[in-house]
Amino acid sequence: MSEELIRQDSPDHMKIERLKREEVLKGSILTYCRDTVRLPDGQLREWDFIRHQGAAAVLPVDEQGRLILVRQYRNAFDRFMLELPAGGLESPEEDTKEAALRELKEETGFTAEKIQPLLRFYPTVAYSGEKIDIYLATGLSESERSLDPDEYINVEAWERETLLDMIYNGELNDGKTIAAILAYDCGRQSGRFT
Amino acid sequence: MSEELIRQDSPDHMKIERLKREEVLKGSILTYCRDTVRLPDGQLREWDFIRHQGAAAVLPVDEQGRLILVRQYRNAFDRFMLELPAGGLESPEEDTKEAALRELKEETGFTAEKIQPLLRFYPTVAYSGEKIDIYLATGLSESERSLDPDEYINVEAWERETLLDMIYNGELNDGKTIAAILAYDCGRQSGRFT
Repeated sequence: MSEELIRQDSPDHMKIERLKREEVLKGSILTYCRDTVRLPDGQLREWDFIRHQGAAAVLPVDEQGRLILVRQYRNAFDRFMLELPAGGLESPEEDTKEAALRELKEETGFTAEKIQPLLRFYPTVAYSGEKIDIYLATGLSESERSLDPDEYINVEAWERETLLDMIYNGELNDGKTIAAILAYDCGRQSGRFT
Repeated sequence: MSEELIRQDSPDHMKIERLKREEVLKGSILTYCRDTVRLPDGQLREWDFIRHQGAAAVLPVDEQGRLILVRQYRNAFDRFMLELPAGGLESPEEDTKEAALRELKEETGFTAEKIQPLLRFYPTVAYSGEKIDIYLATGLSESERSLDPDEYINVEAWERETLLDMIYNGELNDGKTIAAILAYDCGRQSGRFT
């Protein structure tokens, strides 16, 4: 599938392998693990791994073409951030389309007539196995929200062009949200979405 | 900046605050911390936080318009993955443009005549403070690589259209790489990059 292989380190490079994964510590939503990896020269390395159950996210687009986002507190940055409606899976086997529709309703109060896959997004391949399936939701109808007791979330409708400016100006930073808005915009321009 | 606030939970929602951050465990590139957060109703919560020093990444585009990517082993998935050239900062204060040029040269052997900001990307706002500054590099010239002893990286040149198909088919999954390719493609179409 590679168009052109420009440089290759070693014909043996595929022989890197993970020998072991040890759970070290369980957090509130994460498990910190230590992986032992064997390099092609036989040396061993211990590298971080963060286990996460996976998540689903959704880009809801209303009839006027506005994008519906949520604003919520993030302890990592100690501030509110603008993001796609999203949430962790209830089990690793949960269907991500169902999870996306659930989070859409819980966080924004909207249901969607149509939901289609947009991206399979791995946020941090350097140290986490987290996968986020991101969907595009259209045909929205207002319904009831049902936030968890510790969720404080505002719902905002934005013009696509404004969000694109914020992405290119470095004012909108959440990875999955950037990727979904750009995927929707590029996809519209090339006729992938109707 | 919000176009329309559709739903607001509480006028007090801004009163969520982080009271404390405790380091629990240091890994090879991460530090696992526990944050204590006070909710608007006065209740306390303990939430995960992963400290990461920050990173820089670069999307190099050659004279034929091909995108230069690297393929490297990731222990999280125990396989090789296709990604932007990228790397952690050497200190939290390191200039990310310098870091991006360094990683470009170390991993691919290319130097760039022109480098411009593309995205400020936070991969996992739910539990990590990691920030990745992503740059667009053009005017490439071949030079010498200098991989770390435990790096086994192949360098590949890809057509933009092929990568876009792989993104929409769910075959290209790395978050920063998806976002950068889409930002470049959308930006070209709207005349943001020349």
